Amino acid sequence: MTATTEHRPSASQKSISEQGLRAFTNNIFRAIGCPDADAALATDVLVTADLRGIDSHGVARLSGYVRLWENGRLNTAPEPHVVHETPTTATVDGDGGLGLVVAPYAMEIAIQKARQYGSGWVAIRNSNHFGIAGYHALKAVDNDMIGYAVTNASPLVAPTFSTERLLGTNPICYAFPAGKFPPVVVDMATSAAANGKLEVADRAGRPIPEGWALSREGQPTTDATAVKSGGALLPLGSDRAHGSHKGFGLSATVDILSGVLSGANYGPWVPPFVAYLEPVADQPGQGIGHFVGAMRVDGFRPVADFKANMDQWIARFKAARRIDEGQPVVIPGEPEYWATQANRERGIPLVGAVWDDLQQLAAKLGVGALEEELTP
Amino acid sequence: MTATTEHRPSASQKSISEQGLRAFTNNIFRAIGCPDADAALATDVLVTADLRGIDSHGVARLSGYVRLWENGRLNTAPEPHVVHETPTTATVDGDGGLGLVVAPYAMEIAIQKARQYGSGWVAIRNSNHFGIAGYHALKAVDNDMIGYAVTNASPLVAPTFSTERLLGTNPICYAFPAGKFPPVVVDMATSAAANGKLEVADRAGRPIPEGWALSREGQPTTDATAVKSGGALLPLGSDRAHGSHKGFGLSATVDILSGVLSGANYGPWVPPFVAYLEPVADQPGQGIGHFVGAMRVDGFRPVADFKANMDQWIARFKAARRIDEGQPVVIPGEPEYWATQANRERGIPLVGAVWDDLQQLAAKLGVGALEEELTP
Repeated sequence: MTATTEHRPSASQKSISEQGLRAFTNNIFRAIGCPDADAALATDVLVTADLRGIDSHGVARLSGYVRLWENGRLNTAPEPHVVHETPTTATVDGDGGLGLVVAPYAMEIAIQKARQYGSGWVAIRNSNHFGIAGYHALKAVDNDMIGYAVTNASPLVAPTFSTERLLGTNPICYAFPAGKFPPVVVDMATSAAANGKLEVADRAGRPIPEGWALSREGQPTTDATAVKSGGALLPLGSDRAHGSHKGFGLSATVDILSGVLSGANYGPWVPPFVAYLEPVADQPGQGIGHFVGAMRVDGFRPVADFKANMDQWIARFKAARRIDEGQPVVIPGEPEYWATQANRERGIPLVGAVWDDLQQLAAKLGVGALEEELTP
Repeated sequence: MTATTEHRPSASQKSISEQGLRAFTNNIFRAIGCPDADAALATDVLVTADLRGIDSHGVARLSGYVRLWENGRLNTAPEPHVVHETPTTATVDGDGGLGLVVAPYAMEIAIQKARQYGSGWVAIRNSNHFGIAGYHALKAVDNDMIGYAVTNASPLVAPTFSTERLLGTNPICYAFPAGKFPPVVVDMATSAAANGKLEVADRAGRPIPEGWALSREGQPTTDATAVKSGGALLPLGSDRAHGSHKGFGLSATVDILSGVLSGANYGPWVPPFVAYLEPVADQPGQGIGHFVGAMRVDGFRPVADFKANMDQWIARFKAARRIDEGQPVVIPGEPEYWATQANRERGIPLVGAVWDDLQQLAAKLGVGALEEELTP
């Protein structure tokens, strides 16, 4: 469902096998000090994003994580630990580690609690960017559970009636097991559009649609540089008449669960992902925050009954009356499932700019270069 | 946050005290066979909506519930019961009762489970319209817990790329306790606009903004009769470029949690609230479905710390740079909190059409008429 899946340029594109990309990424994480198990886990999160076609959140972000480490803002050998707990809730301190490592640690606790008591919920503080929310929620699905994962993020989005960047694109993910169909995975930013979409338009010299961003003065704009120029992204809904207060409410919910409940930072205090922006002073919490959860399907009804009804739900929505005969309803998570199968078979496509960036990273860190696979 | 709070006409408006409206509503529910305790509970849910200024979901709906009962589609003396359970999850069969009674029964179970184990989650089937989601979520807040409530509803909304009504306006509510400020209550339909907004425009002979509805043919429309004419409401986000697939994903999530997980109906099979529309044949489940939950704040961190940070969060967002000097950022739940204080003091306003409808209802059921209070 991520927009970047549609915008993949075919021009300067190269392709690499899943194994090749895993080996390369693993080497990078080990080179910056991650223990073997952590490196393998962080690699799995990023490569899963690329396999699913969500290339904005895959290895394209590797150099960003490395720059955070270079700036001393990332602990690559963290010891995440539980600081507060009940039978079905916990708060984890991520020890300043990669969210790619800390969030799976927390989700494993949620799953263990759900196995024992039916559900498990873990708030995480003192963490960093955790990759795609869907990775974490799908861990629950592997256990016939419903998965939930949200995170706050660098402030880019203004609440309704303001033009101040106070919220991240704060994604929400719910994942549900199905029977013969792929799992339903709703994995979405709570902004009207991703910042990456503005960057793509900016590089192409194209305007953006109204409803994605505001100017610094709070006016509707089609200027792709609006956010860079002091403006802000708009919440889902775009304007008050179309429900932007609902997108604001969802984003606020994510911020409160991830930041306020865990003891992480929230709102404008969330530290930026990009290393060239310094975290603001007087932070009320530690690092960025996430919130993950798992509920056993058979805590509510037999798994087979649930999956049979999920299949009926999916089949009915796929059969919905179409506006354009060529465009069926898209079941959330299904395009990413099929992208994974295709990318496993044919190799993972990487755009030229990302390829070049990764090669420079490899040279800098002294690890082996990427080697292109020729499609069979 | 509900749109209807803005559109209250002052012309043919009457006013009644909270006590007066409670006594009247209680009599109506008892007249259709509700036991005393159930009548009091259903009354509390509806009057709370009116107090909060969400008059679309208050006593204006009373005659709708009565018509469902007249049509034999409502059990006014239900025995809701748990049909499946773990320490922190349960499924409740609502026995065909009012959602106004069944959902509070389920939320009480969720709160008890949370008290014992940290969190509690209850799916509900075989129920009916449950009023405002916020009522149920706020029960958790009264116990220093985070509350969650969702419900599916009569199909009015089309998924992205379709023009078929397959989803309800499927609201989501999260409620969080705060310290010196009112609780943060995000209570929102997952459609771009409520159907009531189209009805208001239709009665006034006004067009609607593009982005609220589609024509039967799937074209954007400004026709306020679009849904009545075979079209559909649009999900939050309005169109694909502005993220309608996200609104669809949220609505799907609500439908799966409420319908598929509980064993209620889902998608196009959800029975309509209006008694003049018959439920469709071959229903896969029972009645409509809800899903509620509660998590203890002190399952994650001390309540005082959480509330202090909530207050800081709220104060920071209230202080956000404004686009229009006269319009501050609205904290979700705050207007409804102040509306409650005002309506308690000055009486609850009812528009003329609702007043007349209630008087006819009273005459039909042989209960005492409403008596207007003159504002002191």
